[in-house]
Amino acid sequence: MTIITLTTDFGDKDGYIGMLKGVIYAINPAALLVDITHQLEPQNILQGAFMLHTTHRHFPPGTIHVAVVDPGVGTSRRAICLEVPEVGYFVGPDNGLFSYILEAYPNIIARELINRAYHRQLISKTFHGRDIFAPVGAFLGRGEPFEEVGPQLELSGLVRLENLWPDWEQKTNGKRLIKGKIIHIDNFGNLISNIHRRLFAELSSAELERLKIGIPLQITATGIKDTYGNEKKDTLIALFGSSDFLELARVNGRADSRYGEKFAKIGEKFHVRLES
Amino acid sequence: MTIITLTTDFGDKDGYIGMLKGVIYAINPAALLVDITHQLEPQNILQGAFMLHTTHRHFPPGTIHVAVVDPGVGTSRRAICLEVPEVGYFVGPDNGLFSYILEAYPNIIARELINRAYHRQLISKTFHGRDIFAPVGAFLGRGEPFEEVGPQLELSGLVRLENLWPDWEQKTNGKRLIKGKIIHIDNFGNLISNIHRRLFAELSSAELERLKIGIPLQITATGIKDTYGNEKKDTLIALFGSSDFLELARVNGRADSRYGEKFAKIGEKFHVRLES
Amino acid sequence: MTIITLTTDFGDKDGYIGMLKGVIYAINPAALLVDITHQLEPQNILQGAFMLHTTHRHFPPGTIHVAVVDPGVGTSRRAICLEVPEVGYFVGPDNGLFSYILEAYPNIIARELINRAYHRQLISKTFHGRDIFAPVGAFLGRGEPFEEVGPQLELSGLVRLENLWPDWEQKTNGKRLIKGKIIHIDNFGNLISNIHRRLFAELSSAELERLKIGIPLQITATGIKDTYGNEKKDTLIALFGSSDFLELARVNGRADSRYGEKFAKIGEKFHVRLES
Repeated sequence: MTIITLTTDFGDKDGYIGMLKGVIYAINPAALLVDITHQLEPQNILQGAFMLHTTHRHFPPGTIHVAVVDPGVGTSRRAICLEVPEVGYFVGPDNGLFSYILEAYPNIIARELINRAYHRQLISKTFHGRDIFAPVGAFLGRGEPFEEVGPQLELSGLVRLENLWPDWEQKTNGKRLIKGKIIHIDNFGNLISNIHRRLFAELSSAELERLKIGIPLQITATGIKDTYGNEKKDTLIALFGSSDFLELARVNGRADSRYGEKFAKIGEKFHVRLES
Repeated sequence: MTIITLTTDFGDKDGYIGMLKGVIYAINPAALLVDITHQLEPQNILQGAFMLHTTHRHFPPGTIHVAVVDPGVGTSRRAICLEVPEVGYFVGPDNGLFSYILEAYPNIIARELINRAYHRQLISKTFHGRDIFAPVGAFLGRGEPFEEVGPQLELSGLVRLENLWPDWEQKTNGKRLIKGKIIHIDNFGNLISNIHRRLFAELSSAELERLKIGIPLQITATGIKDTYGNEKKDTLIALFGSSDFLELARVNGRADSRYGEKFAKIGEKFHVRLES
Repeated sequence: MTIITLTTDFGDKDGYIGMLKGVIYAINPAALLVDITHQLEPQNILQGAFMLHTTHRHFPPGTIHVAVVDPGVGTSRRAICLEVPEVGYFVGPDNGLFSYILEAYPNIIARELINRAYHRQLISKTFHGRDIFAPVGAFLGRGEPFEEVGPQLELSGLVRLENLWPDWEQKTNGKRLIKGKIIHIDNFGNLISNIHRRLFAELSSAELERLKIGIPLQITATGIKDTYGNEKKDTLIALFGSSDFLELARVNGRADSRYGEKFAKIGEKFHVRLES
């Protein structure tokens, strides 16, 4: 029994996910399928990379993660699979979607998916999720050897997104600054940044309380709180979310909109400022 | 093989549900997971309570219902599990989410979830769904004894929502009135009230035909119909829905909007009037 | 182990799908449930028929497809099940939802679902998905004989949609024309027509490049491309989608909207024109 997770930007109204599952079950009826999300912003590779990063840790070793955010489908971009010891497998396009995984683990082995025996017989130019990635995941899940999917690739040649982990910058005026960005906006309107909790480990509690956190010139919170529920309704607060990234939240409300209008978008600046 | 259902306001775009399922399968790979809905209005406890009430009856005895609508996560609100003989288990926050369940069944045993052996090792202050409720559900599903999750609680001390079941009121002018509210708006735009079919059992058919049903001063239907399909397009009709609650529907249209604009909201008044 | 797929217009916020699954697992806990989609446009039977047509081919023989788009629920419309040799079963209302299936396969046997032993005990007038179609699917999946669900029906008496497959028309001025329509709009804003790839098999490559494809008087592409990724951003292109239907797409954008406003709808004209 192997878990196969699915992470895509396919949405849920087209039956594409249903097709993927049909293909997987036809090869491997014992697979345990888990939808991570199919509501990634269309073609937003960075958001997909973040999603894999935060979710894959909750699955048992050996889990197979099939991920498809694939604006280059049908072009020369490669189809790949990563084997991560004691974690599992990641199957999808070589376009940066696995950037966090590639950085997080040593001893990864990458292969290019060129063995047609593990693909669907007819391959659409626009739907490798169904025709290549899902079948490869299904075959691996039923125990086919990883070596068979295709030749090994140099890790250094794989596509990686830039600036995954923003860090402190020291300004000449004594200020310190982290220039992050919004990497996800969740169902509750919380603005989640790519700024990790570990950057704050060495600050004093006085410094933590003085931090200015937010979208420059738009909204700013002061200090970092523990949780949502203890603050006043409508207060804008900063806190570490359940995956240890810094986020902005509005208590009993949404941080991504004002007077019913959305103003925050994935990819926008999210800064932390510390004045000495 | 145990069924574990999931009912939340998490939405489907954040991977939170995927994390829950990873956590559950890691503990209990034989679990049968069923999503009830993850599209409850954020933090709408009443709607969540209604959802559990109408759906849990369709599952076999022993089913474990994990429910998370949890604006107070990380505060002093308690985490609980109810054992309902011949029905199953309900796991979630003690904030009123189980109000209908508590009222519907005798012999319920409630426990507070304080045994850390059944929780995730690291507990986020903002995500008890993943770190407490899902693991407890998974452990119960694989047969761990209910007694172990934590100490028994007095039922009288549990949080309950008020006015769950509106009833007939007799006015001095001879009119009779039920003051209910909209408790859910479904995918077809039907306005579902918390007014139960049983309140109409003793009315004559002449009385049933005379009833005025609707949102005061906005929209009103007369009488109660059997089904949607026999009426004229765009007629506003009242009928008992598939869970025996009174609802307003517009034939081949939506009852929650007019000229493309939504006007009805969950929580609004939904009245029934009978003039003698 | 049998796969049961679910295709509906129920949406995902009402718990209706959860109820269906509870009913199915209570009868047949070994069922493998797959959601095709629950986001069909409410009461859009043509879109549902298209969805079944494009997805069912990806499932192994014996799969049971439960489909519910059912504006006539509770009226005299019949409840049916089709047995398609070497494909599987289709369970749902007799309202045209199975039009493509009925046309695609010989030797289909149809039965009317009138054996109450295979239904839920109490049958709501508005929810045959839960009370008739899901239980029949679950019983078939655990091996109950198809003959038992009800008496056989003449195929010629079943409801079928018209103009499923538009074809070339020859105009007096020498032009040739296909008058199709938009049958689905996918998550990426691609406009998918009911015009099949096979209509173009005998055109020369010069003719293929000259084709005018689009929504009359609104947007038109010239020629048919291979895939999305090789064209310039924002170009409107025509191509065959992953199910071999002709579609319009905007590279790295949406073909269904302009300046943020939607203008294309399911059911609208989608024409192909060839001037000699």
